[in-house]
Amino acid sequence: MKTRQFFQTIAVALILTLGIFTSALQAAEAIKRVEPPFWWVGFEDTHLQVMVYGPDIAAMTPSITAAGVTLDKVIQVKNANYLFLNLTLAPEAKAGKFDILFQGEGGKGIVYSYELRARKAGSADRQGFTSADAIYLVTPDRFANGDPSNDSQPHMADKLNRADKDGRHGGDIQGMIDHLDYMADMGFTMLWPMPLQENDQQRTSYHGYSITDFYNQDARYGTNEDFLALTQQARARGMGVIMDMVANHIGSGHWWMQDMPMDDWLNFYQQDYVQSSHVHNTVYDPYAAQEDKEKFSGGWFDTTMPDLNQKNPLLATYLIQNAIWWVEYADLAGIRMDTYSYPDMDFMAEWAGRIMQEYPRFTIVGEEFEDNRAMVSYWQRGKVNRNGYRSALPSLIDFPLHAALVKGLTEKDGWREGLKRLYGVLSMDLDYAAPEDLVILSDNHDMSRLYTQLGEDFDLYKMAMAYTLTMRGIPQIFYGTEILKTSPEVKDDGKIRSDFPGGWAGDKVNAFTGEGLGKTEKAAQDFVRRLANWRKTKKSLHVGKLMHYVPQDGIYVYFRYTDQEKVMVVLNKNGQAKDLPVARFAEMLAGTRRGHDVITGQDLDITQKIPLGARSVTILEIE
Amino acid sequence: MKTRQFFQTIAVALILTLGIFTSALQAAEAIKRVEPPFWWVGFEDTHLQVMVYGPDIAAMTPSITAAGVTLDKVIQVKNANYLFLNLTLAPEAKAGKFDILFQGEGGKGIVYSYELRARKAGSADRQGFTSADAIYLVTPDRFANGDPSNDSQPHMADKLNRADKDGRHGGDIQGMIDHLDYMADMGFTMLWPMPLQENDQQRTSYHGYSITDFYNQDARYGTNEDFLALTQQARARGMGVIMDMVANHIGSGHWWMQDMPMDDWLNFYQQDYVQSSHVHNTVYDPYAAQEDKEKFSGGWFDTTMPDLNQKNPLLATYLIQNAIWWVEYADLAGIRMDTYSYPDMDFMAEWAGRIMQEYPRFTIVGEEFEDNRAMVSYWQRGKVNRNGYRSALPSLIDFPLHAALVKGLTEKDGWREGLKRLYGVLSMDLDYAAPEDLVILSDNHDMSRLYTQLGEDFDLYKMAMAYTLTMRGIPQIFYGTEILKTSPEVKDDGKIRSDFPGGWAGDKVNAFTGEGLGKTEKAAQDFVRRLANWRKTKKSLHVGKLMHYVPQDGIYVYFRYTDQEKVMVVLNKNGQAKDLPVARFAEMLAGTRRGHDVITGQDLDITQKIPLGARSVTILEIE
Repeated sequence: MKTRQFFQTIAVALILTLGIFTSALQAAEAIKRVEPPFWWVGFEDTHLQVMVYGPDIAAMTPSITAAGVTLDKVIQVKNANYLFLNLTLAPEAKAGKFDILFQGEGGKGIVYSYELRARKAGSADRQGFTSADAIYLVTPDRFANGDPSNDSQPHMADKLNRADKDGRHGGDIQGMIDHLDYMADMGFTMLWPMPLQENDQQRTSYHGYSITDFYNQDARYGTNEDFLALTQQARARGMGVIMDMVANHIGSGHWWMQDMPMDDWLNFYQQDYVQSSHVHNTVYDPYAAQEDKEKFSGGWFDTTMPDLNQKNPLLATYLIQNAIWWVEYADLAGIRMDTYSYPDMDFMAEWAGRIMQEYPRFTIVGEEFEDNRAMVSYWQRGKVNRNGYRSALPSLIDFPLHAALVKGLTEKDGWREGLKRLYGVLSMDLDYAAPEDLVILSDNHDMSRLYTQLGEDFDLYKMAMAYTLTMRGIPQIFYGTEILKTSPEVKDDGKIRSDFPGGWAGDKVNAFTGEGLGKTEKAAQDFVRRLANWRKTKKSLHVGKLMHYVPQDGIYVYFRYTDQEKVMVVLNKNGQAKDLPVARFAEMLAGTRRGHDVITGQDLDITQKIPLGARSVTILEIE
Repeated sequence: MKTRQFFQTIAVALILTLGIFTSALQAAEAIKRVEPPFWWVGFEDTHLQVMVYGPDIAAMTPSITAAGVTLDKVIQVKNANYLFLNLTLAPEAKAGKFDILFQGEGGKGIVYSYELRARKAGSADRQGFTSADAIYLVTPDRFANGDPSNDSQPHMADKLNRADKDGRHGGDIQGMIDHLDYMADMGFTMLWPMPLQENDQQRTSYHGYSITDFYNQDARYGTNEDFLALTQQARARGMGVIMDMVANHIGSGHWWMQDMPMDDWLNFYQQDYVQSSHVHNTVYDPYAAQEDKEKFSGGWFDTTMPDLNQKNPLLATYLIQNAIWWVEYADLAGIRMDTYSYPDMDFMAEWAGRIMQEYPRFTIVGEEFEDNRAMVSYWQRGKVNRNGYRSALPSLIDFPLHAALVKGLTEKDGWREGLKRLYGVLSMDLDYAAPEDLVILSDNHDMSRLYTQLGEDFDLYKMAMAYTLTMRGIPQIFYGTEILKTSPEVKDDGKIRSDFPGGWAGDKVNAFTGEGLGKTEKAAQDFVRRLANWRKTKKSLHVGKLMHYVPQDGIYVYFRYTDQEKVMVVLNKNGQAKDLPVARFAEMLAGTRRGHDVITGQDLDITQKIPLGARSVTILEIE
C-alpha cells in the first residue's frame, strides 16, 4: 500500500468511526440510481463511467479508496441531480464491493457500496450466432403467458387487455422458458425476443421499442433474474439468446424525461416537435444538406420516442456500457440493434466496435429496413465506403434478399423478374463485405406475415422456407410463421404480432402440442421442423460455398457445398412436374450418382435427370 | 550503326540489287492486309504487333532492318495466311517508312514498306470530354445525307432503302460535317456518332455495331479521310468527336469469317450456335457457375454478331492497338465502348488501361445498360471491388440515373417514388468511384424517345432536359430529342432512330433552320439551345459541387456551386404555382438576395420566397 493510499484509508476509517457518513440505508434514499448498477473486473477496456443520480448529488464530492480502482474524474453536468464518475479498474482490482464516499458540505457524507463481479469463464471468447444457427424471433407479449400474476403492474399504465390488438396480452419471459423445448424441438438454436426492457408507456408498450429503463426488464415480462434464467435454460438446450436493443431513442416515459441530465441529452429537446424524415440515405448522401441530415438523425422517431443525442460523450458511454452490461450479465449470444442507421453513425461504429473489442467472436445484427443493397451493405464491418466510414457491425438483416424472395416467387418469370430476381439479388453479393454473415428471414414483426405475402400459397411457402433454411446467411423465422400465421395485407403491427395458439390457458388450439392445428398448418410446422433440424448438422449450410445457375424454364438450381458435402436445392415454379436434365450441372454433379431427398426421404438416381414435382422445392443431399 | 546491322543492310542491298525480291506492286498482291496499316513513333508503349495477311504468308521469313526498329518475334498461327510480327520501336526509331522483308523458299521474297508517322504535338496530353461538355449523340445513317453518291456501294449488300425502317437511309459523314454549325449553335461541344466502321452485312447494317473491318470506315458513310475531316472541322468549332467502338463482337460479314486466323479467335466457333444469356451479372457473381459465365461472355450477341475471344492475346493486342490507332489517326476526344461487360473483363481493364496510359487525360465511356447502380459502378476506374477487380475505365453511361429521372417525373410522388426517387438515386453516389465523370443522358438509340417516355408531356420534358443539363455528370442529348422526336412506346430501334428532318434533300421540315417545325418543337429546340449554350461557361456545372434537399410537397431543390458561383434548380411537380419559402435553404442561400432566372431572363428577389410556376423547372443564378 502506498503512503498516500494508507492515509486516505485511515481518514475514511476515522470518518466512518465518527459517524459523519450516512448508513447504507440513508445512501439509498439520497442516491436514487447508480448505473451500471454493478460491473465486472477483467474487461479489455479498463474504464468505467458510473452515472449517479440523486437529489443535488453534484453538491457532494466523491472519493474512492480501493485497490486497483482510481477515480480519474468527476463530471458535473447542468442538472445537479447527476454526477458522472470516471473510474479506471487496474488489473489488481478485485471482484467484490468497494465504497464510494460522497462528501457533502458541513462534513456530511454518504457511502455507496459498488460491486465489481468476476466474469464468467470464457465470457470474452463467447461465440455469437452464425450461419450454423437458426433464429426464432418472438414477440414476448404475444408468445406465451407463463406467469399471469405479472400481466398488469400496479404502478404502470397499459394494463392487460387482450381484446386490444395494440394492448398488452400477457406473454412473458416465463412463457418463453416454458416453451424452450418446443423451440429446440423445432430445430431453432437461437431465440431473439423483441425488447424486454421496461416500457412504462401509456399505451402500445407491448412492442418494447420505447425503453424507459435501460437496466431493468419490464416487470410485466419478469425480472432481470428471470431473463438470466431464460438464457441459462436456453443454453442447457444448446440454444442462445439474442437481445434486442435500441440506442436511437427512448420511450417518452423514461425517467430521464422528468429530470433531464443535460440539455443536449436529446435531439430537438425543448423545441417544437421535429419528426425524423425517415430518409435514411441522408446519412451517407454526399450531397445532403446539413438540414436534412439533422432532421433524419435528430428528428424523433415518433412523438412517444424522444431521440437520443449520441454525440454527447456521456450518453454515448452510457449506451455502450449498457450493451456490454447485458451481454455479460445475461450471458447473451448476440445483439439485434434496432434502427441502426438512425443514431449518429460514428457513435454506432464506436458502439459496435467496443462490444466487439470485449467479445471478438460475438455477433451483432443491425436493422436497416431497406430493400436497397447499397443502403444495407454500407453498415457492415469490412465494407470499404468511399466516404471513409468504417463500421464494426458484423451482421445486418438481409431485407433486400427477403424482398427479392417474395417478389421473385409471386411475380411472373421474366427477363429480370421471378426466379431471375432471386438469381440477380445474390449475384450482387460483392456489395457486402461478408454476405454469409447476414441474417436472412422468413418475415418479421414489421411486415405482413410471409404466408400473407405469398397469397396463402402453400407451395410457395415451402419454397420460401426451404430457401431461407438453405441459402447463404443466418436463417431467422418469425414465431407463428411455422404454423402459417396470416395478417392483413396492409401492414398492421398489432395483428402481425398476434397471439401464438397454446400460449394462453384455455386456448382451443395449441401449436406447441399440435392440438387443434389444421392439416396444412401441421404440414407447415412439420416441414420447418424437419428442415431446421436437418440443417443443424449440415456443414455445407454452415460454412459451405454457394453456387447457383441462371434460372431457365421456371427452374432455379443452387448448391451449397464443402469439400466433403454437397446439397442441391431446386425450385420448380412450373405448374407441371418436370424432369431436370443434369448435364448442365456437371461442375457440381460430375462423378455423383445418387441424391437423397431430404423432404421425402427417398433416394434418387441422378445420373441423367431429376424428377421435380409441379410447383415444388426439392432438396437433395448429393452422394 | 552496329556491325551486325551494317552487314544486314549490305545483304538487303545486294538482294534488292539482284532483283530476287518482288516489287511493291507484287507485294500488294501477295500481302492482302497489314494491320495496323501504319503506326506512330513516340508512344509510351514501344511494342507494336503487326498482323500480316496473305496467301501462305507463314511460309515466308520476315526480317527488318531499320534504325530503332527490332523484330522481336514472328508468330505463326494455325492458319498459314496470317503472320504476327512483334516489333519494338526504340526511341531512335524515326517517322518514315521502313521495309519488312519476307524471305520465301528458293530465295524468293517480298518487300513491304511500313510507315511510322510522327504524332501530332500534344497528342498524348489531349483532353477527353468532361462535365464541361455537352454531347450530341447521332445515328449517322439517320442524321443527314451529305453525299448521296455514296448511299449504295456496288460491292456491298444492304443498299439504300429509306422505306425500310431497318434499312439504310443514306446519312453519312458529310452530312454531319455539313451540320456541325447547327450542333455548335445548339451548344453541343462533343459529337458522338454511332459506329462508322464498315458493316458489310446483309441487312440492318445501318446501326454500325456489326463491324466487318476495324480499320476502315464504311464506304456508305465516307472514307477514313472524311472522318478525319469531320474531327478537324469539329475542332475548328470547339467541338470534339467521340468514336463508338465495339470489342465484344464482329459482324458476321467480317473478312476474318472467311479465313479464321485461329480456332480460338471466336468463342463458340464451329459449334452449334450459342447465344449470350445476356445475364450481365454472371461476370462478378461470386456464386456463378462456370457454365453461366462462359455462356454470357462467350455466347454470341446475335446470330449476326460472332463473339470475339479477347483471351486470345494476339486478338487482345489487335483490339487495343486498333483503339489507339483511331485516337491518334482521327484526333479523337473520346471513345464510347459498346457492351462493356460482355468481353473478358480482364481484357477490358487492360484495353482501357493501355489507352489511358497513352492518353492520361482522355475519356472513355463504357456502356453497361443496366438500371442497377452496383452493376454500373463495378466498371469504373477507382472502384474498390471485393473480388479484386480494378477497372481502368474513366466513365460509364448513367442508366440508373436516367431510369430514376423518367420514373421519378412520371410516377406519383410517394415515400420512395416520384421526386424522392430522384433524391434517392443520387444519395447513393458513394457507390461510384467518380460520379461526376458519368455520362447522364436524355435518352439514346436503344430506348424509346424521351418525349415518348414522358407521355409527350412538355412540362416534364423541360424538367428532364433542364435536369440533364444541370445535374452532376456529363450531359448527352440524343439527336432529334431537341425537337421532341417520338417513337413507339414498345422499343423499336429502326423507329427510334428516325431521320432528322432537314437532313435529306426535299425534306418538308428542316430542323436545322427551324423551317416547318411546330410551335412546341421550336420551343423545345430553343429551350435546349438556351440551356446548353448557357452551361458552356458555368463553372458550377463543370466542376462544382452538388447539394440537394429531400423533396417536400412536390418540390425538389438542388444547387450546383463553387466558391464563386451558385446555381439553384427547382422542380415543381405540383399542378399549381407555388411560393417556395427560402428559409430551409439557408446553408446555400444565406447572404444572397437576388436570383437571375436563366430561362425567363428575369431577376428575382429571393430573400423570402421564390415563385414557381405550375409543373415547372426554375433555374436561378444566385447573386
